[in-house]
Amino acid sequence: MSREFDWIARYLRPLAEASPVGLGLTDDAALLTPPPGRSLVLTADAMVAGVHFLADDPPGLIARKLLRVNLSDLAAMGARALGYLVTASWPEDVAESSIAAFAEGLALDQEIFEVVLYGGDTTRTPGPLSLSLTAIGSVPEGRALRRGGARAGDQVWVSGTIGDAGLALRDAEGGLAARLTESERAYLRERLRLPTPRLALGQALLEQGLASAALDVSDGLVADLGHIAEQSGLAAEVAAARVPLSGAARRALDALPALLVEVLTGGDDYELLFTAAPERAGALQALEAQLGLPLTRIGDMAAGAGVTVRDAAGLPIALERPGWSHF
Amino acid sequence: MSREFDWIARYLRPLAEASPVGLGLTDDAALLTPPPGRSLVLTADAMVAGVHFLADDPPGLIARKLLRVNLSDLAAMGARALGYLVTASWPEDVAESSIAAFAEGLALDQEIFEVVLYGGDTTRTPGPLSLSLTAIGSVPEGRALRRGGARAGDQVWVSGTIGDAGLALRDAEGGLAARLTESERAYLRERLRLPTPRLALGQALLEQGLASAALDVSDGLVADLGHIAEQSGLAAEVAAARVPLSGAARRALDALPALLVEVLTGGDDYELLFTAAPERAGALQALEAQLGLPLTRIGDMAAGAGVTVRDAAGLPIALERPGWSHF
Repeated sequence: MSREFDWIARYLRPLAEASPVGLGLTDDAALLTPPPGRSLVLTADAMVAGVHFLADDPPGLIARKLLRVNLSDLAAMGARALGYLVTASWPEDVAESSIAAFAEGLALDQEIFEVVLYGGDTTRTPGPLSLSLTAIGSVPEGRALRRGGARAGDQVWVSGTIGDAGLALRDAEGGLAARLTESERAYLRERLRLPTPRLALGQALLEQGLASAALDVSDGLVADLGHIAEQSGLAAEVAAARVPLSGAARRALDALPALLVEVLTGGDDYELLFTAAPERAGALQALEAQLGLPLTRIGDMAAGAGVTVRDAAGLPIALERPGWSHF
Repeated sequence: MSREFDWIARYLRPLAEASPVGLGLTDDAALLTPPPGRSLVLTADAMVAGVHFLADDPPGLIARKLLRVNLSDLAAMGARALGYLVTASWPEDVAESSIAAFAEGLALDQEIFEVVLYGGDTTRTPGPLSLSLTAIGSVPEGRALRRGGARAGDQVWVSGTIGDAGLALRDAEGGLAARLTESERAYLRERLRLPTPRLALGQALLEQGLASAALDVSDGLVADLGHIAEQSGLAAEVAAARVPLSGAARRALDALPALLVEVLTGGDDYELLFTAAPERAGALQALEAQLGLPLTRIGDMAAGAGVTVRDAAGLPIALERPGWSHF
């Protein structure tokens, strides 16, 4: 990093001050002594302008989404969030105000999610803004929510509402202006731009032993349920009518039923998708009330393989493109 | 990541197989139980085509340098290396053979440095290849080599040779073809493209209590010594004639003495720069012999501030640009 980027340090250093781990960003690396009796959970995601966000999106929102998609991976494992390292490659002509706004966004979410900056790197790039973030959390030693623990007979549950982010993308391509109000469109856009990592839910599922398998919906509902099915060696079945929708998504589907495919296969919802034994249903309803977060049973796990989504008449819905897949 | 990138998983998954931590890259995050009695050391660096390497550099070498610059930060803290997460944003037209070569490079260095892939993310980009890597190591609980521990009267030491990488960059700009042999130029190039993280040295300095402060030379000798001086609240003085040079660098300086500035301020050497009490000199000479790695005393720490480099006559050498600074 050349000296013209010195002011980046000014904006990022304060983000490390709330914890000794980052050593004030003045050393070569961070020094983390894990909480006793707990293992660490580590995840990394990259985001690139023009692929994961628009070059003129507000830098604060970009920063918060970058942090949140990683925190969502921690939530999926049932982890408490601890801290993160971030690398940012900025275009040569970046304005100082963009860096300031980026850091402000991180500062805001550090407060909300009780995480702190551990370290990172800033470089320039001849290309678009390219970001990478590694998030670190902790779980009780050796325990974590995994994808492969579902059993035949388990029920499939999902938090919040599904499809908002996919519909927002569809709307950005010019699809929904005639069918939704401006405030409905804004709601969908907000869900895409600022997802909410379900950390409290993940921790409760792990600590109370409620979920047999879990992940976050990032590739799309069907693709992600496919990951659970595959890793568990089972089949999954979903009733399309049970998939929880926001008011805006419901209105969009009422107007254009074909958008159901968008809901089932669109990514970026960052809700938790999990399986639980039927006898856990009561505890899950209690948890729903406690967290103030809808938890909806949408299907079942059974012997076999693959994911089947059925319509109200019980007929399988054909899905050409199940979703996106991460490595 | 879209499905056309599925084959990336094919090349990267095997890199995670030697350890349970990465969970086979099939879950949302990695699960690391730190070795008992040890803290974790965390560092992240980004590299971008056209800035840190050339777009047509061999992908295997790029991967290895990316890993090694991060391992060098672990070495600077005295850590043992454990594993890493990597994110890669590949141009749309990337050839499968490039991904394969990238993974091969990582596999090679995983063997050499006994590290394993814990996780990561792969995306596409409309811009140049953009990489980020987070490396994780361990140190005895709560202990690490730091930048701020030097004391007045300590000696300044450096491993290996200094300036090769900076001279290689200078040569790439067309500077040295007339002055060096082809094999000398190749040697410098190799030092730039494939640095050697001094992990064994860092661990020995920490475990034997030999160094009072340490870092790796990435910003340039003078700038990095400035970091130690600043963090320790001291001044540093270096005798230019003592700075250890490779045969190629020596020949370049004999031909063009002004290149001394390149040696003193060029970055990317990834040698360890450290301070030690004078009574440690004997132990350091023994360590030098044991590791087969030159350790050279180049100067001293004293009360005051800043870095002074003196020529053979004892006069200060003026340096307009001390080096590069990372956050």
